[in-house]
Amino acid sequence: MSSIQDNKFQAIISHAKEYGFVFPSSEIYDGLSAVYDYGPYGSELKKNIRDYWWKSMTQLHDNIVGIDAAIFMHPTTWKASGHVDNFSDPMIDNKDSKKRYRVDHLIEAFADKLTEGGKEQEAEALLAEMERLLAKEDFTALKQLIEDNKISCSVSGTVNWTEIRQFNLMFDTKLGSVAGDAETIYLRPETAQGIFVNFLNVQKTARMKVPFGIAQTGKAFRNEIVARQFIFRMREFEQMEMQFFVRPGTEGEWYQYWKDARLKWHLSLGIDPAKYRFHDHVKLAHYAKEACDIEFNFPIGFKEVEGIHSRSDFDLTQHQQYSRKKMQYFDTDLNEEGKPYGNYVPYVIETSIGLDRMFLLILSNAYNEETLTKEDGSTDSRVVLNLPAKLAPVKLAVLPLTKKDGLPEIAKELVDSCKPFFRCFYEEKDAIGKRYRRQDAIGTPFCVTIDHQTKEDQTVTIRYRDSMTQERIHIDKIKDLVLKETF
Amino acid sequence: MSSIQDNKFQAIISHAKEYGFVFPSSEIYDGLSAVYDYGPYGSELKKNIRDYWWKSMTQLHDNIVGIDAAIFMHPTTWKASGHVDNFSDPMIDNKDSKKRYRVDHLIEAFADKLTEGGKEQEAEALLAEMERLLAKEDFTALKQLIEDNKISCSVSGTVNWTEIRQFNLMFDTKLGSVAGDAETIYLRPETAQGIFVNFLNVQKTARMKVPFGIAQTGKAFRNEIVARQFIFRMREFEQMEMQFFVRPGTEGEWYQYWKDARLKWHLSLGIDPAKYRFHDHVKLAHYAKEACDIEFNFPIGFKEVEGIHSRSDFDLTQHQQYSRKKMQYFDTDLNEEGKPYGNYVPYVIETSIGLDRMFLLILSNAYNEETLTKEDGSTDSRVVLNLPAKLAPVKLAVLPLTKKDGLPEIAKELVDSCKPFFRCFYEEKDAIGKRYRRQDAIGTPFCVTIDHQTKEDQTVTIRYRDSMTQERIHIDKIKDLVLKETF
Repeated sequence: MSSIQDNKFQAIISHAKEYGFVFPSSEIYDGLSAVYDYGPYGSELKKNIRDYWWKSMTQLHDNIVGIDAAIFMHPTTWKASGHVDNFSDPMIDNKDSKKRYRVDHLIEAFADKLTEGGKEQEAEALLAEMERLLAKEDFTALKQLIEDNKISCSVSGTVNWTEIRQFNLMFDTKLGSVAGDAETIYLRPETAQGIFVNFLNVQKTARMKVPFGIAQTGKAFRNEIVARQFIFRMREFEQMEMQFFVRPGTEGEWYQYWKDARLKWHLSLGIDPAKYRFHDHVKLAHYAKEACDIEFNFPIGFKEVEGIHSRSDFDLTQHQQYSRKKMQYFDTDLNEEGKPYGNYVPYVIETSIGLDRMFLLILSNAYNEETLTKEDGSTDSRVVLNLPAKLAPVKLAVLPLTKKDGLPEIAKELVDSCKPFFRCFYEEKDAIGKRYRRQDAIGTPFCVTIDHQTKEDQTVTIRYRDSMTQERIHIDKIKDLVLKETF
Repeated sequence: MSSIQDNKFQAIISHAKEYGFVFPSSEIYDGLSAVYDYGPYGSELKKNIRDYWWKSMTQLHDNIVGIDAAIFMHPTTWKASGHVDNFSDPMIDNKDSKKRYRVDHLIEAFADKLTEGGKEQEAEALLAEMERLLAKEDFTALKQLIEDNKISCSVSGTVNWTEIRQFNLMFDTKLGSVAGDAETIYLRPETAQGIFVNFLNVQKTARMKVPFGIAQTGKAFRNEIVARQFIFRMREFEQMEMQFFVRPGTEGEWYQYWKDARLKWHLSLGIDPAKYRFHDHVKLAHYAKEACDIEFNFPIGFKEVEGIHSRSDFDLTQHQQYSRKKMQYFDTDLNEEGKPYGNYVPYVIETSIGLDRMFLLILSNAYNEETLTKEDGSTDSRVVLNLPAKLAPVKLAVLPLTKKDGLPEIAKELVDSCKPFFRCFYEEKDAIGKRYRRQDAIGTPFCVTIDHQTKEDQTVTIRYRDSMTQERIHIDKIKDLVLKETF
């Protein structure tokens, strides 16, 4: 990461804190690692992103319905899904410092140093060998690789390592306080399984016919060893997932459909297409047919924001096996097409997006430090969030020019007539320029100023955030203008 | 609970399952005790209730802003709040059956039997003594009370009890998998503390002036020993809380204000006021000034749905002490009023409502089994959810009378023009009466039928859920009618 990128990322984090978007969790207690709270404007922006996704996935799709499954699930769910056995990272401890490392991170950091020292080829060879051994889960050879390269702990400086062990990333807790009857359960590491276990309940009660989808938003938890990069990788995060159930044999076309549809969704927010790219997975899980990420050019480089996965019938089949309940769909349409009636386990295309990452994407994309040239040739600057108007936390700020002469009353009347429809902000303190800057900083698309002329002809000055142009329009037109531009 | 009430409650639970409102969690694995999932219609209804609360508390109040704090918080939070030390229930185990009981539940069940046996006075005396000993936390005497009354375990039938011990209701887990560095953290048992620890961050970044409020919705978790009564008491549940910060000395009037305002909110949903009552707390926490519950007449009797609490400066003062950070507000208005500038820890009025309970309230209130008399004198019946239109999961069902003659095309065009604005449902299968009944069962306020006359004069039949009356109106008027009635 270049220092310019790094500076921009740090500036965004500071801005998010200063303007009430994101705070470190429990900050008065010096924070909780890799956990964040959303403040007054952050919680609105996050809700608006979630609602926009929810509406576009469910309300606008006749064949997708939502659910809201609990975070707690029966523990066998995670046995069936493979998380109990496989959702883990190989770790190694330094015996002197007691510091624990993810094996791949430890070796990668060493390879970076080799590269910096001009030994690119050695670094590449080391990483290739690491990948080969990780794939084989040959932990003895991996430890040998670390020792042969004299890779040391950054704290103790020694090469005195423990054996490599697997550590599961799921958080666990005990349910029920009845003696001898407490059960270990997990905080879900993904929301998808809540959809799979409810597949038949949803299909039957909502009378859905394949192909159809089930969408869900909600919290998930992963005990990441190294959680970092602000809200990009957190231990508690929110997912927006949709599982689309299709006839076996049609998964290829539906995978392509959802790849296109999801990119289109991102672009519908007016974001530059050049900032997006697809990354097709080369290494696939054994059950996966195809998989890709939608990557965005964050200030920290191109990173995954969403995944689209063709998951075959793996999950439903696993749950069928562990629960001994049929997870089959009875397809009457096959008969109408002249084929015999058929029961089958549907194939699944998944779209999975991190809400917090999408928040970071929107915030990074919107954040701009602008240098402005004034009429007299001098320069000024502003920080503005060029947020999509439909996602902005506040849609309209109403600002009386002065605190007297009845201007606040007119302003409040406008606020009262608008606030049942969208979020408004009223402010009467400080110079008007300062008030505009504050609204720029939280991304409010429209500011309206009430002045003395308003009392004469009922016109107000509307000021547009992005262009900073101003025009006078009749006060009665404000509500519909904002409604139209923010829908 | 009478058997009629019980039957109604069971009927609601069955209806909720059958029509995709609420499923037992992980049902294919035989469920997880006291945890539930919301299905296609349930998730929409729940979201609509949450959104209605959020809008009325934040968007419509200039002096209330929202936050979205994490479930994970620094563990000292719960030390300061008193939850680590005091959020527990006294429990006793039967040594033979190993079954564990909450002491108060065990004694109350015994008192109920005494009452049933005509020994009301003995029962009352027993309960009074229990209350006295619980208040003193005299567990030795409480155990003696159980033994003296020969209160036995319902499984083993014996009076062979362990000592009484306190069991904390918070779920815990370990954060960070670094050896020797893993920290015990809790799943928050209430959302309120996320507001208190962020008090100054919010006040400063959103430039709030006392009196002002901070609102939040989110999950909370309690390891209830006996969680029961469907979604009324769950181990994982969602709260909608607002903490209102006021000048010391004004808490009395603000407590009264929020008591009135919150009841008004409930009644704004068109629910019969006779089903509500206030229950003032007689026993108050030592820091509380006043407290009451808003109770609703559920099918299981009058029960708490919301609490309004005057909490003094207890929470902020505790966090100030534990964090050594000032939690004070600098009140410049005091100066403007001719009083000296003043720093103080604000007092707090809390309104706290359970989203799942509100869901159960709305569902119970809406559920009706009706006997209908037809024109020929014969009778029919229907189950209808008379949901407030603004909360209904689906606002409009569009039903072509037949699958041919271009009627589906007209219907789909209507759906397409409406669905950006509200949730629609399209169905072409089965007799029209059957389709109406299905919409009644999920609470859809408006059904529109497209028939052959529609092709001639562009009129459709609109049918109103509650009255079942029908009228013909022009197809172009549907969208605005539904928008108006569901806003």
